[in-house]
Amino acid sequence: MLIPRSHPRAASLYIRERLVHGYKNGLVVEEGLMAHGRGEMFDYLIGEKTTRYSQDAIRAAARKLLLARSPVISVNGNFVALCSKEIVQLSKITGAKIEVNLFYASEKRKKVIAQVLAKNGAKQVLGLEKKFSTRIPKLDSARRIVDRRGIFAADVVLVPLEDGDRTVALKKFGKKVIAFDLNPLSRTAQVADITIVDNVARAMRLLIQTCTKLKQKKLKEHKFDNKKNLKHTIVTMRKNLVRLAHA
Amino acid sequence: MLIPRSHPRAASLYIRERLVHGYKNGLVVEEGLMAHGRGEMFDYLIGEKTTRYSQDAIRAAARKLLLARSPVISVNGNFVALCSKEIVQLSKITGAKIEVNLFYASEKRKKVIAQVLAKNGAKQVLGLEKKFSTRIPKLDSARRIVDRRGIFAADVVLVPLEDGDRTVALKKFGKKVIAFDLNPLSRTAQVADITIVDNVARAMRLLIQTCTKLKQKKLKEHKFDNKKNLKHTIVTMRKNLVRLAHA
Repeated sequence: MLIPRSHPRAASLYIRERLVHGYKNGLVVEEGLMAHGRGEMFDYLIGEKTTRYSQDAIRAAARKLLLARSPVISVNGNFVALCSKEIVQLSKITGAKIEVNLFYASEKRKKVIAQVLAKNGAKQVLGLEKKFSTRIPKLDSARRIVDRRGIFAADVVLVPLEDGDRTVALKKFGKKVIAFDLNPLSRTAQVADITIVDNVARAMRLLIQTCTKLKQKKLKEHKFDNKKNLKHTIVTMRKNLVRLAHA
Repeated sequence: MLIPRSHPRAASLYIRERLVHGYKNGLVVEEGLMAHGRGEMFDYLIGEKTTRYSQDAIRAAARKLLLARSPVISVNGNFVALCSKEIVQLSKITGAKIEVNLFYASEKRKKVIAQVLAKNGAKQVLGLEKKFSTRIPKLDSARRIVDRRGIFAADVVLVPLEDGDRTVALKKFGKKVIAFDLNPLSRTAQVADITIVDNVARAMRLLIQTCTKLKQKKLKEHKFDNKKNLKHTIVTMRKNLVRLAHA
């Protein structure tokens, strides 16, 4: 498809093309394309850059992942379409397992996602073998099915672009949840222990850098006030809504 | 795809399915699904209902369409997927012509769109025959191509979910532009003569009702302050962002 170079939103349109590419390769589902659009709008409201509040959340997330006993990175089609390399890198640095978990489940799509991750260097991708599957209690959708070796046994789970129901269920099940969510008002954002309100492509790069740096140091648990952090982000969005209106 | 009924966002997910249906029938393109997602979030910020400011804009738009010498409704895939019946109804009430105009152009998709409109009662759909095509000056994308009998000769053009470049070009070309745009900060919203910041499905129904009512009356041109109207909408969004944050 032809995007004129002179178009002022060309950059954003090119990013969309990456997701369309992922869609055409069977990674992403139609609903995932719309979910991306929703994220785009919130990204616009934070000024399309990592805010200092996201930076704080990323630091807290890096610490939590490095201190975890058994961390897991939960992945879906959009996440892999946008940053497959980064997922594998983060997994290697933190020792986190990678597990595929889809809202719109399909065995075929799971396999495609796992293949892309393997191509990018992932040694193991959980969530595919029936013999290891079990359920998280109190959850209706297909996403309740998890891997016994992965999310089921994890202490810390990193969830990107997550469904609210599932985050609530993971919390009730005793997990510490780190979430990427561009909507600071979503249930996932509100319920997670650490919410990174940022474009996942930008945030993953910074999370990897931060983990690499912190890994050299002796770490202790830090307090992180997620609700307060989210409030700051909402204030930023409100200010930008006014600023943009007067541009 | 299975959406659990207990899911709190089921209603919004069902609307998406309509667009996905339009996608599967060749009306909508992948990028259109993302654009819809973006719109959804802005809809969320106006409270998912027609504000009094949209009502004002709709009244001004009805007046403008009824007083026009040669009005045209420009349609794309998303617009037709969401309200093909309403487009045909509005065209009949106002005497406006219907013209297909796509950002991601394809002859095949144009035909599918025209077929859906014909099935819903449209007598003529412009923008398909090469022998009538011409260009609007100062525009790069495929959308510069318009129908000599339609947009090229129009005095008033109704554009839904429009690309900013094109709105600017239409304005420079001397057209009065009425736009549907859920983002009050977009160039289209800012440049149009009348911007209806509303979900196109809700707004079209109200526009049809208003046109039907006003058609009985003797109309005169009214002043409409689009910038002021947009400012009110932005304030509404800001307030909702705060309200939602404390819910």
